[in-house]
Amino acid sequence: MASSLLRNPTLSSSPSLPTFSSTITTTTPLSFRFPPSPHHHHRRSSSASLRLSCSISDPPPPLPRDGEQSPGATLTSKEKLDIARQLAKLGVDIIEAGFPAASKDDFEAVKTISETVGNAVDENGYVPVICGLSRCNKKDIQTAWEAVRYAKRPRIHTFIATSDIHLEYKLKKSRQEVIEIARSMVRFARSLGCDDVEFSPEDAGRSEREFLYEILGEVIKAGATTLNIPDTVGITLPSEFGQLIADLKANTPGIENVVISTHCQNDLGLSTANTLSGAHAGARQVEVTINGIGERAGNASLEEVVMAIKCRGDHVLGGLFTGIDTRHIVMTSKMVEDYTGMQTQPHKAIVGANAFAHESGIHQDGMLKHKGTYEIICPEEIGLERSNDAGIVLGKLSGRHALKDRLTELGYVLDDEQLSTIFWRFKSVAEQKKRVTDADIIALVSDEVFQPEALWKLLDIQITCGTLGLSTATVKLADADGKEHCACSMGTGPVDSAYKAVDLIVKEPATLLEYSMNAVTEGIDAIATTRVLVRGNNTYTSTNAITGEEVLRTFSGTGAGMDIVVSSVKAYVGALNKMLDFKEKSPKKVPSRNTKVTA
Amino acid sequence: MASSLLRNPTLSSSPSLPTFSSTITTTTPLSFRFPPSPHHHHRRSSSASLRLSCSISDPPPPLPRDGEQSPGATLTSKEKLDIARQLAKLGVDIIEAGFPAASKDDFEAVKTISETVGNAVDENGYVPVICGLSRCNKKDIQTAWEAVRYAKRPRIHTFIATSDIHLEYKLKKSRQEVIEIARSMVRFARSLGCDDVEFSPEDAGRSEREFLYEILGEVIKAGATTLNIPDTVGITLPSEFGQLIADLKANTPGIENVVISTHCQNDLGLSTANTLSGAHAGARQVEVTINGIGERAGNASLEEVVMAIKCRGDHVLGGLFTGIDTRHIVMTSKMVEDYTGMQTQPHKAIVGANAFAHESGIHQDGMLKHKGTYEIICPEEIGLERSNDAGIVLGKLSGRHALKDRLTELGYVLDDEQLSTIFWRFKSVAEQKKRVTDADIIALVSDEVFQPEALWKLLDIQITCGTLGLSTATVKLADADGKEHCACSMGTGPVDSAYKAVDLIVKEPATLLEYSMNAVTEGIDAIATTRVLVRGNNTYTSTNAITGEEVLRTFSGTGAGMDIVVSSVKAYVGALNKMLDFKEKSPKKVPSRNTKVTA
Repeated sequence: MASSLLRNPTLSSSPSLPTFSSTITTTTPLSFRFPPSPHHHHRRSSSASLRLSCSISDPPPPLPRDGEQSPGATLTSKEKLDIARQLAKLGVDIIEAGFPAASKDDFEAVKTISETVGNAVDENGYVPVICGLSRCNKKDIQTAWEAVRYAKRPRIHTFIATSDIHLEYKLKKSRQEVIEIARSMVRFARSLGCDDVEFSPEDAGRSEREFLYEILGEVIKAGATTLNIPDTVGITLPSEFGQLIADLKANTPGIENVVISTHCQNDLGLSTANTLSGAHAGARQVEVTINGIGERAGNASLEEVVMAIKCRGDHVLGGLFTGIDTRHIVMTSKMVEDYTGMQTQPHKAIVGANAFAHESGIHQDGMLKHKGTYEIICPEEIGLERSNDAGIVLGKLSGRHALKDRLTELGYVLDDEQLSTIFWRFKSVAEQKKRVTDADIIALVSDEVFQPEALWKLLDIQITCGTLGLSTATVKLADADGKEHCACSMGTGPVDSAYKAVDLIVKEPATLLEYSMNAVTEGIDAIATTRVLVRGNNTYTSTNAITGEEVLRTFSGTGAGMDIVVSSVKAYVGALNKMLDFKEKSPKKVPSRNTKVTA
Repeated sequence: MASSLLRNPTLSSSPSLPTFSSTITTTTPLSFRFPPSPHHHHRRSSSASLRLSCSISDPPPPLPRDGEQSPGATLTSKEKLDIARQLAKLGVDIIEAGFPAASKDDFEAVKTISETVGNAVDENGYVPVICGLSRCNKKDIQTAWEAVRYAKRPRIHTFIATSDIHLEYKLKKSRQEVIEIARSMVRFARSLGCDDVEFSPEDAGRSEREFLYEILGEVIKAGATTLNIPDTVGITLPSEFGQLIADLKANTPGIENVVISTHCQNDLGLSTANTLSGAHAGARQVEVTINGIGERAGNASLEEVVMAIKCRGDHVLGGLFTGIDTRHIVMTSKMVEDYTGMQTQPHKAIVGANAFAHESGIHQDGMLKHKGTYEIICPEEIGLERSNDAGIVLGKLSGRHALKDRLTELGYVLDDEQLSTIFWRFKSVAEQKKRVTDADIIALVSDEVFQPEALWKLLDIQITCGTLGLSTATVKLADADGKEHCACSMGTGPVDSAYKAVDLIVKEPATLLEYSMNAVTEGIDAIATTRVLVRGNNTYTSTNAITGEEVLRTFSGTGAGMDIVVSSVKAYVGALNKMLDFKEKSPKKVPSRNTKVTA
């Protein structure tokens, strides 16, 4: 329940992930259905109001190639719910909550989000649209509707490819067949009682214009309310993509009654520019992801699009504006980083660790002198607190009350039991480390509170290693009933031997795909956070929306501590717990949906 | 000598770093000085030929704020030389080699590059321009000239701010004073014998147009040959930046005789789009960096600009093309990642780990079927080898010859002693790890060959740690004379205790700023690479080009191995070695250049 812990606006977290496919992402409410709500500041004219649609779906875990990293862990249902809550805090207009036909787990996640976040109307009447993704077939659409129908504002987003290369090699269908499928499936979605249907012509960026006018005109007649235009392969330049939107706006019959949406992939690094260009040309919904994550090079990132519009919307983009509460951007970004394991690079625009780093390295008066000279966005605008000079907030003499106060200031509201655990760990850190910083405290909270249900719990570990001897680890775990299990193993290093000892106890085959560690705080005695990604056996599968193929799930785990071996083992046990939890919820293998697109 | 090891075009490495300031980067040769060389493929018409200028300068190391990361290590002279060699392989037209006035070390690095890379004319007559950065004062310019004059094609790049906000708060000068400084300093640079002078009006993106026309017209008269237009704060949208270039082209007296250059910061995620927009509007030089690194959110990235032009130059950008040999992009990117410690995010366009990840996760026939459907760039084009199905290239029965052959295929040419060392380590890995992959081998080579001069060498280490006892490390190091030193220490964890033991021996105060680790290969028994960043005491300083202030240097170290504690200690010792090496070369503190801009 991560997001419920976060109260302070400068620290609330909320992320949005890319879609299952490289094509699809979001949704767009009609303006008559979505009156500008007071919740959204700066609502001046509805004609320049831009809707933001964010996908929660995690990218399909690719089967990693040997020796190569394949970042991006499968999100658990709880993580998806946390993210959806954060997206609502951010004021995202449409949350694309997932692809319900992918697996039972995905279905349940979307349904839960519909029932909770999709019904949490705030004091200003704001509640996000909850959207479910589906291919153009009855089964997918029906499943999507079953998952989203509980939301106050449900939406189905269905798609089919329209470029010649996709028709020929992927669908093996004629244009007329594709039009017929699209028309009948949009009509089918409406017939279920869903009066908000989004349609995407996949690979629109490479589709023939006349064919797009025709198929889009037909789906409008069939009842589509939003037309999303994906640059699926990320090949267009901004001028091209803007022209595409302008052409569609000028030539598609009935387009004046629906909302045009953009969905830009980032293969050439142009997704943000393309999105802005599309909006300038008349799109009034943009599909984005937090941190710009997504398949391959990712999607347009919410933070870049939103801040560019905030900085230049008035001057350059005809008064465009969004309703996003930008103060939630930083924590949203951090949550998505943590949950997906997709770390942003230090020079990532807006949310990278260095994005505002010029503040440091110059003296106080220099900073004041330079603020306007090199800074176009005030860090507080996106929820980034400037460090105070003190920096050191707590020491080993600080009491429980001081810790609780600081946690509250940081936006964390913990119950007594959680506070006790954190306090105990805080004291043990403070005993060994002179300066306990905010970053230390946040790492501890993440480690204690953001963990999955503990089926296995690490009790103790003992290691001997080095260049001289055989690495040996002894591990003691407790199972769900509290029963203790011990095992020891040798290995090529301390982590290898400890993981092998854990495997001897847990007895669940898993492959370690990724292993990384970062010290969150400065100094040799820092708290290190370890992140691992594991893949289970064939039991853990999901369906790729685009290819229709089964993909193996991956699970992430994190652990924090001053001993890197201990934090490594905690991360591994955490990942195994997630994997076992997923298994419990999906007792049987989901039937394969490796079928062709059918009507 | 990293780059000299790399022969295979698909694996040669070459990076380019951002400039010292957020403003400045490159240089632009006049077409009469730079006849289209046969080395550059696709040279069709010189009017559409775009020069690429890449900076080697590392970003100034900011003084890290407490609890916050400040990635980006100071590059050593050797690393800069390696990078320059790689940039030449890539066919970069201008290498901005550094800011010679920053420190003696920087001066020597630029001078060495001028003498070597700047004189290495290839069989087609190609040799890159070597450019030195300088503020608008005589001392900087003279120092820059002393550093670059040994190159076949030397260039000085000088800059001064032109926006009202910079004039008022930073320079505290009137517009006429700034014009006079710029004019006289460009003239001074020419008077030294440098006939290739680049001038940048810093913060051009926010400068008044009429003032820009005037000052640029004056520096052209004074002898500037390239005018670089920086969007210093990264605030412009592509349409704005293109208009700026078009306006300058239309209204600056004498501009038809010089080359216009772009320099786009990435604060809103638009640097690539802005660069393309500027080139489309008439700029014929673009300043870029490898991986898009640079201050704050970085600069336009070479790989994105180059590949966008390669994909769409003909169709959308009026036939624009560059002379870059794109097959060197991937290794270039990796070298810059390694040397700077600035890791790209998995969804970084072109060079991110996931940029081509869609290939995996689908079956062989699916991959063939989908290649064209989702892939606009062939991975081989940028030097990314598709993994073969075997993946496992070597095992424990592989001999020295097999290893040497594979290393040659991978582009590494080692001498016998290096090969012996690698082979010994390869065997010890193969004994413990079933599958030795290319990534494993590359990690070992990096660990053995890319290390700094070893003042201190790790001999042995022994560790006991865990949740139950006190972490204790015993470390044995050899000094430069081969004398052995032993020390032991306790600590909060295995790395802390080992680093403390190292400190007891080396006795050189250093603060650990960053610590990170990644497993380069899949599996629990993987080789982990540790990267650390340390900061020395006040002895290690450099001058920030923009603020003129002294900044503390930081030093990175890497270590690879199957025992994470051992690799952590190797990384730390490596960083200390770099720091001590820098100290030896800079015996005295460089006199402060914290002076105002003067003529």
